[in-house]
Amino acid sequence: QSSLKVYGLVDMGLGSFEGAHEKGESTRTTEVRSGAMTTSFIGFAGVEDLGGGLKAEFTLESFIAVDTGQTLNNNAGNFWGRASNIALSGGFGKVALGQYDNPLFTSGYTYNPFGSSMSFSPTMRHFNYLGTSLQTNIPSAGVGFDTGWVNSITYESPNFSGLSFVGQVALKEGKGAQLKNSYTAAATYAAGPFAATLTYVKGGISNAAGTVIANGGAYTSDEKLWNLGASYDLGVAKLFGQYTSIKEDASTAGAVGARPNNKDKIYQLGVSVPVTDKAAVLASFGQLKNKDTDAGVTTKNEVFSLGYDYTLSKRTDVYGVFSNVRQTALQSGQSLAVGIRHNF
Amino acid sequence: QSSLKVYGLVDMGLGSFEGAHEKGESTRTTEVRSGAMTTSFIGFAGVEDLGGGLKAEFTLESFIAVDTGQTLNNNAGNFWGRASNIALSGGFGKVALGQYDNPLFTSGYTYNPFGSSMSFSPTMRHFNYLGTSLQTNIPSAGVGFDTGWVNSITYESPNFSGLSFVGQVALKEGKGAQLKNSYTAAATYAAGPFAATLTYVKGGISNAAGTVIANGGAYTSDEKLWNLGASYDLGVAKLFGQYTSIKEDASTAGAVGARPNNKDKIYQLGVSVPVTDKAAVLASFGQLKNKDTDAGVTTKNEVFSLGYDYTLSKRTDVYGVFSNVRQTALQSGQSLAVGIRHNF
Amino acid sequence: QSSLKVYGLVDMGLGSFEGAHEKGESTRTTEVRSGAMTTSFIGFAGVEDLGGGLKAEFTLESFIAVDTGQTLNNNAGNFWGRASNIALSGGFGKVALGQYDNPLFTSGYTYNPFGSSMSFSPTMRHFNYLGTSLQTNIPSAGVGFDTGWVNSITYESPNFSGLSFVGQVALKEGKGAQLKNSYTAAATYAAGPFAATLTYVKGGISNAAGTVIANGGAYTSDEKLWNLGASYDLGVAKLFGQYTSIKEDASTAGAVGARPNNKDKIYQLGVSVPVTDKAAVLASFGQLKNKDTDAGVTTKNEVFSLGYDYTLSKRTDVYGVFSNVRQTALQSGQSLAVGIRHNF
Repeated sequence: QSSLKVYGLVDMGLGSFEGAHEKGESTRTTEVRSGAMTTSFIGFAGVEDLGGGLKAEFTLESFIAVDTGQTLNNNAGNFWGRASNIALSGGFGKVALGQYDNPLFTSGYTYNPFGSSMSFSPTMRHFNYLGTSLQTNIPSAGVGFDTGWVNSITYESPNFSGLSFVGQVALKEGKGAQLKNSYTAAATYAAGPFAATLTYVKGGISNAAGTVIANGGAYTSDEKLWNLGASYDLGVAKLFGQYTSIKEDASTAGAVGARPNNKDKIYQLGVSVPVTDKAAVLASFGQLKNKDTDAGVTTKNEVFSLGYDYTLSKRTDVYGVFSNVRQTALQSGQSLAVGIRHNF
Repeated sequence: QSSLKVYGLVDMGLGSFEGAHEKGESTRTTEVRSGAMTTSFIGFAGVEDLGGGLKAEFTLESFIAVDTGQTLNNNAGNFWGRASNIALSGGFGKVALGQYDNPLFTSGYTYNPFGSSMSFSPTMRHFNYLGTSLQTNIPSAGVGFDTGWVNSITYESPNFSGLSFVGQVALKEGKGAQLKNSYTAAATYAAGPFAATLTYVKGGISNAAGTVIANGGAYTSDEKLWNLGASYDLGVAKLFGQYTSIKEDASTAGAVGARPNNKDKIYQLGVSVPVTDKAAVLASFGQLKNKDTDAGVTTKNEVFSLGYDYTLSKRTDVYGVFSNVRQTALQSGQSLAVGIRHNF
Repeated sequence: QSSLKVYGLVDMGLGSFEGAHEKGESTRTTEVRSGAMTTSFIGFAGVEDLGGGLKAEFTLESFIAVDTGQTLNNNAGNFWGRASNIALSGGFGKVALGQYDNPLFTSGYTYNPFGSSMSFSPTMRHFNYLGTSLQTNIPSAGVGFDTGWVNSITYESPNFSGLSFVGQVALKEGKGAQLKNSYTAAATYAAGPFAATLTYVKGGISNAAGTVIANGGAYTSDEKLWNLGASYDLGVAKLFGQYTSIKEDASTAGAVGARPNNKDKIYQLGVSVPVTDKAAVLASFGQLKNKDTDAGVTTKNEVFSLGYDYTLSKRTDVYGVFSNVRQTALQSGQSLAVGIRHNF
């Protein structure tokens, strides 16, 4: 076990949090919160050189709510909810089996200044809505958003002069007329200060409540999703942009999590400005627009976050973030938090 | 991850256990028991020097029932139930965020010869009654007793010529008319052979069943608790004493775990006698007196434990303990166990 | 913590699986499957030399479904479901307390070419039926089959000129007229190319639903089991054979998992043929015959597996297996899978 690595991240903060709410019904709470900037976790991983340029590597990672000691599961409700896979890599690229980062998530955290922050990143808050309703006032979208896909096969291509590809399929592993596999494909181009990724997701569907959980999977509802993310590093500032379009067919009526004839559009614009060697200012604005054609209702949810990050050491930084969320027909909510993030 | 430490303790014993019981209804069982002397656990921790005397340290610890392979959760039902926190320490003392040892627990295991033994320490058995009814015949007290408090902020002062202080608050993290934060404050004086700690706990309250679990917290019921513990090391023997007083207001009627107009008094007297370099005899007597003013009933529960501990090596010891428990209106129960305790 | 070891195994495959099924109701699914050849797990273990030839060692191991990130529990539903124990070893042999490999499981995986494969080994599939019905068409036998027994005391003798013994008792740890301890005894003789083990298991019984789970144990139903396994290594091939007989008394009627007046016979014949230094062909045929005297029904389940294993490196191998299962009154099912197995 020469190569075994035990590692992880603890992110803990203290803040006052408020969501969009009905008038006179503020949801404000003061909280010790784990993972406000990056979800805390512990991991075990290793690599073995098999010769001939071939490598075998495994990864097991579990989310932790450090504030309470709970484990945070993936949508499928599993302990090793951040990653659990084995991969073979070589000149051909990399093939992974198991639960592996979904390319939509990867693109999502790459092209916004708040990364994978489930509390502050407008993108993550709007992606989260795809699986569970973070903003409880918007009906949750049916397509599961898990940061990693279970029961999946993933192929990552080598880098061809800045161009690379990823393909992922999550098997349905069950029988049923409406049960389908889920697919993701993504292409990335990166050259000098510029990078961009185009991602396509086609979510599978289950035909009965409970089926999905039984499979340990969480990718319900027959939705199609396009996502484009890009960044440009000017040196004095790095610019970010993202656009996502989601469409659900009428044919999904009756399926678990189905929202027939719903359309969503998500965009985000962000910037990170290094103010010293150790400090950066982060700003991001994102909008989610949900259109329910059947109900004839359009709802907008907008998140704006402004943050300051200061590096204390090689493995530890501290942050302070102000965030505002507003939504059609609701009062806006303001959150303010400070925290410390420690890699181990 | 240079500083990462994987560590823990396995305590396994074999014994015949009996609680206080109705006449002719002995509860005696023969058991392979985990953690009779010290609850078994596994932990992951690390420290990073941030410079200028400042250190960041994190701790993640999970209880284990080694006899069955179960994880033992804290009252809030969480996997990392022994500890999950990050702390900054320096000349100012230490500030910790997350789930961190409650000072009542710390004082509780410090001033009795059986430490944190949930099977043999009269103090721990009576503290346990505060959260869950170890002696099933006494109604459980409402104030949660968790060895660590979740969602908490803890401050530990430096040592001022033998004097030190600890303050802890566990945030309610929810809204509701009766929901309150929980607080603990403790002061310790230690000089030469003498040490004493005075602790005050004010438990919060929840106004509806389920609220507490939903918050991942377990500190219900608006009780006030005073605790005084002291020890004196004569060299040929170390003497221990503890006194605890708990009072619940009438105002808590209707709250989760509320016992309006209940009063509890707990005391313990103990001694540990080193008989050789490697062996010690331990003895402890404790009484819990519960007075239910409304029902007009007073119940006493008394535990006496006599033990022998022998050090096999730097990391391993073996023990044998006899324990007697008796309670108002019940037959007394006798337990006898031997075990091995191994640090790793 | 000098001796602490973090280790484990990740086995991941891709296959098309089908069980015995009613006509026209194939159960075929395409799956990313964890642990098809060996159940994936992570472990923490350590040894301490206590002097005088005495050693203390502890083991904590948790099964993992790497395909979904789930933990796989033992029958008792526990996180540390592969092993959780402490042992003292020396010239007298070894005594272990806690959850420790049951000798029936040890003999079961030793004398068949597919080892502990829950997907391909006919023996493991038929043993599994003892606890849970892997072939859902055969009623599950009542005697729990857990690879390790919880709440147990195990003694392993030293090797006396090729002869060695194991005794194990799992304590009932509860009260109730029908509740009994479970026992296993095994004797092994190994000399040169020959090895054989005779095992006897007497399963305890619980008298009410839920009792067993409450105890964290899973050894229900008053069954008696005899098992004989043997192997002979010819050099060009290693031969394997196993025979198991299980009988349940009429007296168990009404008990949890009871199947009064049921008899089962299981046999297996296998061979492994090393074709190169790094490759081996494996073949195994096994039959389970269940006779329900009360119902007057006899059911046979037969599994045949043919596999190829290729060693990629010191810690990693790949495999391909074809397996056929057939059962009285059902259509047979065929499975085909390839996988990679990585020790860390």
